[in-house]
Amino acid sequence: MRLELICTGSELIDGRRIDTTTKLLANLFREEGLNVFRVTLVGDRDADIAKALRSSLSQAEIVIVSGGLGPTVDDRTRYAAAEVFRRELVEDADALRELEEKFALFNRPMMDNNRRQCLVPTGARILANPIGTANGFALEEGGKWTIFAPGVPRELELMAREQIIPLIHEQFALKGQVSRVTLKTFGKTESAVDKLLADVELGDVELAFTASFPEIHLTLTAIGASKTIAERKRNKVRALIRRRLEEAIFTEDEREMEEVVGELLNKHGLKVATAESCTGGMVAARLTNVPGSSNYFIEGAVTYRNEAKLSRLGVSEELLAQYGAVSEQVAQAMAVGMRESSGADLAISVTGIAGPEGGTPEKPVGTVFMALASPQGVRTWHDTFRFGDRWRVRTLSAATALNRLRKFLLKWPS
Amino acid sequence: MRLELICTGSELIDGRRIDTTTKLLANLFREEGLNVFRVTLVGDRDADIAKALRSSLSQAEIVIVSGGLGPTVDDRTRYAAAEVFRRELVEDADALRELEEKFALFNRPMMDNNRRQCLVPTGARILANPIGTANGFALEEGGKWTIFAPGVPRELELMAREQIIPLIHEQFALKGQVSRVTLKTFGKTESAVDKLLADVELGDVELAFTASFPEIHLTLTAIGASKTIAERKRNKVRALIRRRLEEAIFTEDEREMEEVVGELLNKHGLKVATAESCTGGMVAARLTNVPGSSNYFIEGAVTYRNEAKLSRLGVSEELLAQYGAVSEQVAQAMAVGMRESSGADLAISVTGIAGPEGGTPEKPVGTVFMALASPQGVRTWHDTFRFGDRWRVRTLSAATALNRLRKFLLKWPS
Repeated sequence: MRLELICTGSELIDGRRIDTTTKLLANLFREEGLNVFRVTLVGDRDADIAKALRSSLSQAEIVIVSGGLGPTVDDRTRYAAAEVFRRELVEDADALRELEEKFALFNRPMMDNNRRQCLVPTGARILANPIGTANGFALEEGGKWTIFAPGVPRELELMAREQIIPLIHEQFALKGQVSRVTLKTFGKTESAVDKLLADVELGDVELAFTASFPEIHLTLTAIGASKTIAERKRNKVRALIRRRLEEAIFTEDEREMEEVVGELLNKHGLKVATAESCTGGMVAARLTNVPGSSNYFIEGAVTYRNEAKLSRLGVSEELLAQYGAVSEQVAQAMAVGMRESSGADLAISVTGIAGPEGGTPEKPVGTVFMALASPQGVRTWHDTFRFGDRWRVRTLSAATALNRLRKFLLKWPS
Repeated sequence: MRLELICTGSELIDGRRIDTTTKLLANLFREEGLNVFRVTLVGDRDADIAKALRSSLSQAEIVIVSGGLGPTVDDRTRYAAAEVFRRELVEDADALRELEEKFALFNRPMMDNNRRQCLVPTGARILANPIGTANGFALEEGGKWTIFAPGVPRELELMAREQIIPLIHEQFALKGQVSRVTLKTFGKTESAVDKLLADVELGDVELAFTASFPEIHLTLTAIGASKTIAERKRNKVRALIRRRLEEAIFTEDEREMEEVVGELLNKHGLKVATAESCTGGMVAARLTNVPGSSNYFIEGAVTYRNEAKLSRLGVSEELLAQYGAVSEQVAQAMAVGMRESSGADLAISVTGIAGPEGGTPEKPVGTVFMALASPQGVRTWHDTFRFGDRWRVRTLSAATALNRLRKFLLKWPS
């Protein structure tokens, strides 16, 4: 079954507004096993709407058109529909009566232009709009259905749930149920993940990559005759992928990395503190994004200059002079100093050169040292994040620090 | 001139992600006097991309295709292009050499599948991607141009500004000269700004509002027979708007608020430190976004729990017990304590209830206190940011802190 959407509204294509209708409808339809194959965004012009309609009808069995059913002069959808289907627009008597009742109920005068909202192409089936003035309508021709609905998200969603989806079920015997899962990964590039998964037997399960810097998200979609069959297929592929990616997968739901870290800290009853230089507070800001993070986040220090590393974290002048502020030794001293002075169980530190200035041949821009102090001692890491600008180096450094905390906590005895 | 967009990516039509490319490109093109007539969103399938391409080429002179140029198996755009234009895909030697250099520079192994990213249809013009691995390319046929660009917003935006728009200017003689300026404002709502500007004489200068939370950006676009005429028109309206909005305008160029603050600190030779509770390091992270911020940013403390407010900032236990951590008195003590212990000239503090938990009838979620300690003493503020969730309260608090620092610095004697 091929389904297409046409979203009308000049504001969607002239840079004023982002289209949110597609996501809304795609998610509702997906639950019914219906995939959207193409979406067309067009402005409020009869000719453009008509062209889009003809194009979608040439390749889809179901076309949903949103928007352009209001009372104003730039609401053009019904006129485009009349033209494409070569049907006259007629005033629907029932729709008019209901609209008059609505206005009476809301104690508001009905304008002449509201009457236009009762014009539908002959033979259309009216789709009532209980929470607005723009009714929808549906037209059948040659076994294909075209459904016109208002653009206002709340009205559209209600109409989709209560009328459009039942209509599709009634007219088309829908085959197949969908099962989907998204695995969020961190620490491997898109091409590395691709290579690791190259020979995974997917069968007819779809695998899609989405780069959400600095993470790579993998979405598995399986279709089966029943929900159980679809889930079984999906789970089979998920197990294969898990075996390849292991701990690179940090969640299989909507959670952010900092939420995963927070839950691990809570689970083990551990408290954390941060000592940041080049990331300037980004690690602390991410950890405290989570409601209730005061349970496990004690404090953070942004010791950007050497004086602060000395006074706040007790990093010695000798160490700074001998190795430089960006060094394994200083990262280590920062983490240890923070852990001791804060009383936290764990302290993580980041020091590096975010650029664009400050690089040297030995320590180029992107050189970052991290350390994690714990009751078991202290671990350090040396990275060179060379891909990109200051923002990318900092963002990647902060995410890497959280990921190291996560991996450390995964090994914590429960 | 008819321009169409094709945004590829299954995540755009299956409900996972909202399309933001259209808004980004439409705004950039509008500045050049170019309107988008239709946008097509399609999944990562050769046949669907090819169909969309053929359809757009049948009615537009310029077609921009975003996405699907990565190294993975679901990156299908170059194959669809080869099919539609009936051209072979050939490995571009220059592109390959540059990609190899990029990987060498970043000290990362280049995968075989990255080589695919150097395949372009014969006769294509390469569009370099200085901040990613996916080059773009442009194809001419019958006087029409089809331009293929990566889908990653930052890479796409850079390529659009530096290569796509110049290419369009070079190939099509665009009429009229455009003069444009964006005034970034902070501290007033969109409707308040709208009201303040209601009777400003715009003439034929276009005024567009863009909400970029928590800022409101105003873009003035003037078109004239020459650059000078366009600029004169634009400047006339800008002067009128400046008179209404005054200090709410924080910049008239691309700078971020933290860059404006940084330049003011540098100008006056002042150094700053931060003491944050509910914003969890966001103020420090923004200040240190700026290259060279170590000139003026001394340090930051994220004193999330009371213990840290005590030990790091010397906030007294009595004060915390008497007024609570979220109070004017504690904000004041945090700023004063940070200023004294860091040796900075200025210290700014934020303490508040970001929610969703922790609110009380007297101090509901969104209650935030700030203080700014300076050689002249200490100022405090009490806000209630009631609009929105935890993320919005924190983001708005951090931006407000920076804006208060900016307004304070504007009054500093030079």
